[in-house]
Amino acid sequence: MYKLIKNSGAARRGEFTTPHGTVQTPAFMNVATCGAIKGGLSALDLKDLKCQVQLCNTYHLHLRPGDENVKKLGGLHQFTRWDGPILTDSGGFQVFSLAKLRNITEEGVTFASHIDGHKIFMGPEESMRIQSHLASTIAMAFDECVENPAEYDYARSSCQRTVRWLYRCKAEMDRLNLQPDTINPRQMLWGINQGSTFEDLRIENMKQIRELDLDGYAIGGLAVGETAEEMYRIIEAVEPEMPKDKPRYLMGVGTPANILESVKRGVDIFDCVMPSRNARHGHAFTWDGCRNMMNAKYTLDEKPLDEHCDCPVCRNFTRAYIHHLFKSGEMLAMRLCVMHNIYFYNSLLEQIRSSLDQNCFEEFYSNNILKLGARI
Amino acid sequence: MYKLIKNSGAARRGEFTTPHGTVQTPAFMNVATCGAIKGGLSALDLKDLKCQVQLCNTYHLHLRPGDENVKKLGGLHQFTRWDGPILTDSGGFQVFSLAKLRNITEEGVTFASHIDGHKIFMGPEESMRIQSHLASTIAMAFDECVENPAEYDYARSSCQRTVRWLYRCKAEMDRLNLQPDTINPRQMLWGINQGSTFEDLRIENMKQIRELDLDGYAIGGLAVGETAEEMYRIIEAVEPEMPKDKPRYLMGVGTPANILESVKRGVDIFDCVMPSRNARHGHAFTWDGCRNMMNAKYTLDEKPLDEHCDCPVCRNFTRAYIHHLFKSGEMLAMRLCVMHNIYFYNSLLEQIRSSLDQNCFEEFYSNNILKLGARI
Ligand SMILES: [Zn+2]
Ligand SMILES: [Zn+2]
Repeated sequence: MYKLIKNSGAARRGEFTTPHGTVQTPAFMNVATCGAIKGGLSALDLKDLKCQVQLCNTYHLHLRPGDENVKKLGGLHQFTRWDGPILTDSGGFQVFSLAKLRNITEEGVTFASHIDGHKIFMGPEESMRIQSHLASTIAMAFDECVENPAEYDYARSSCQRTVRWLYRCKAEMDRLNLQPDTINPRQMLWGINQGSTFEDLRIENMKQIRELDLDGYAIGGLAVGETAEEMYRIIEAVEPEMPKDKPRYLMGVGTPANILESVKRGVDIFDCVMPSRNARHGHAFTWDGCRNMMNAKYTLDEKPLDEHCDCPVCRNFTRAYIHHLFKSGEMLAMRLCVMHNIYFYNSLLEQIRSSLDQNCFEEFYSNNILKLGARI
Repeated sequence: MYKLIKNSGAARRGEFTTPHGTVQTPAFMNVATCGAIKGGLSALDLKDLKCQVQLCNTYHLHLRPGDENVKKLGGLHQFTRWDGPILTDSGGFQVFSLAKLRNITEEGVTFASHIDGHKIFMGPEESMRIQSHLASTIAMAFDECVENPAEYDYARSSCQRTVRWLYRCKAEMDRLNLQPDTINPRQMLWGINQGSTFEDLRIENMKQIRELDLDGYAIGGLAVGETAEEMYRIIEAVEPEMPKDKPRYLMGVGTPANILESVKRGVDIFDCVMPSRNARHGHAFTWDGCRNMMNAKYTLDEKPLDEHCDCPVCRNFTRAYIHHLFKSGEMLAMRLCVMHNIYFYNSLLEQIRSSLDQNCFEEFYSNNILKLGARI
């Protein structure tokens, strides 16, 4: 399924085939939490924004509209009208970060819905069943995401439980894929590496989970409180233990600079809410750094958001207009800024792939790493 | 400029030529208050939604971003990227409805901005200068819009002052169109009929303002507190006095049924915020009546918003998905519902034109007038 095309140091250029199409890696996944990208974007818009993969959140869709309803409506592809690959997370991250009054046992987690407080139990089997109903291309294993900094002993025992959960996920997904009414009988399961910021735990965990020979592996539990340097250190520690013939996904990361640094360290796939979350505050990512469109200096600025961008927004609208829309509280401000940001992220990954193809990744890295982190 | 193509009773099929393109009438104008349609729609979207004319609000744009800034940015066409005809209202309606502490004299109105409370004076000359800066295709005369019910004496004296203001508008617009730095030297001025719900005042006023031989005439001061029946009575009273060779615009009206009734009484052009305002509450206009998308009965409904509609939303998304988006508070709910509603309004006018072309307007009216007002 994953084909490694070429390396540049640890960085990898590859492609990854799924029943819903092929993904060129390194790739960015666009986050449609409740089945829609924040900012008024539909699956139809994603086609114009170089999007390859859509990510949807199991926890949110389980609560609303309910995964059984999504199944009745033909699954997420039919529901959202996105026909490319869809990855669903396991729900674990949201259970541990959004839900109230959670209680973890060997069986799974009992928690209260953040919408109406009703009690819900989710364990590995429940997560697989929900994701099978959603009928995503790729289901993620149910894991505990431990916040950083964490106690070593807690991180170790949580990790061990997550491995036991992974076996249960695998067994349940195998069973579900054989059911006659399964929408996507070729649904994949990806495992998740945990171990907080402790190299030895990370490495031991990676060795254990690669034994299951899953379709892909993620690094979870990063970008949850530790510094970027700690995150890079952990990626460097665990990367040599990751299978070379499987895609590698760094969950919930990150800024454009985080992504470039992580590609350099061997990561293939990313997801992050920053393109839409930052747009809410008027922040536009550009090849010269991050621009705050609320700034009065844009009042009469007739240039596009990013002079190096050929997205539908930059081809048509001025900074002055977008600044005005933000000041006026118009929904269109958010939509235009999200469209540009998503296009920017997908273009960044496209440029990274292109530099790998042309054997100039190191040069691309040096030319861009500082600019990408700038505030202009 | 206006060519009457055919009549069916009082109903008129015509076309109206402007420097920014020709408008087939009867027509609906899509309201972009601050230079953007509410609900995250841009000028580019309007092209897909059968929009012919965009309306922008002088009062809002004067306050933000400022009409002088819009002029520096090349006028509203350049600013919003809408290249078809644009009509600007005079600001009068908002001054009288949104602003605080207003004080009317023969010269004009002093009022406090609804944004930051600062004091502003606007009279006929100021309104023309602002609209000249905005460089719309059609400028509206500065008038006082009296709320209904009104006292007869107040309505009469207000009307008389509005006629004096109209002469001043005309003189100032003529002067502005001759300035060397005017963006749109062919900017038109349309007059506005007032007189509250009093037929004699309306008729007298219409006779006075038609003397100026302006490019078009509006009926203002309706849909501001009176019943629909009173409104139709006033249209019927004033219509015979309106020039046959000029477009007629009924300001701020209305529901699909209001529009059909008013076309029947000789009106050519409409504007209304209902397509976007109603979408905010989940209301979708359809050929079978108005649908509330918040209703739980749509949870598993795989049909489009309107089975008779071929808009980009109805071609792609289900009621179930849109219902889910509304329940989840996703911005996309609003955008999809506004897109459909605007397309619906523009299609309604297109169907009206087509029925006039095919000499079956009366049949079209009978088949649709009740359904259009239904709640389903
Ligand atoms: Zn752009
Ligand atoms: Zn539609």
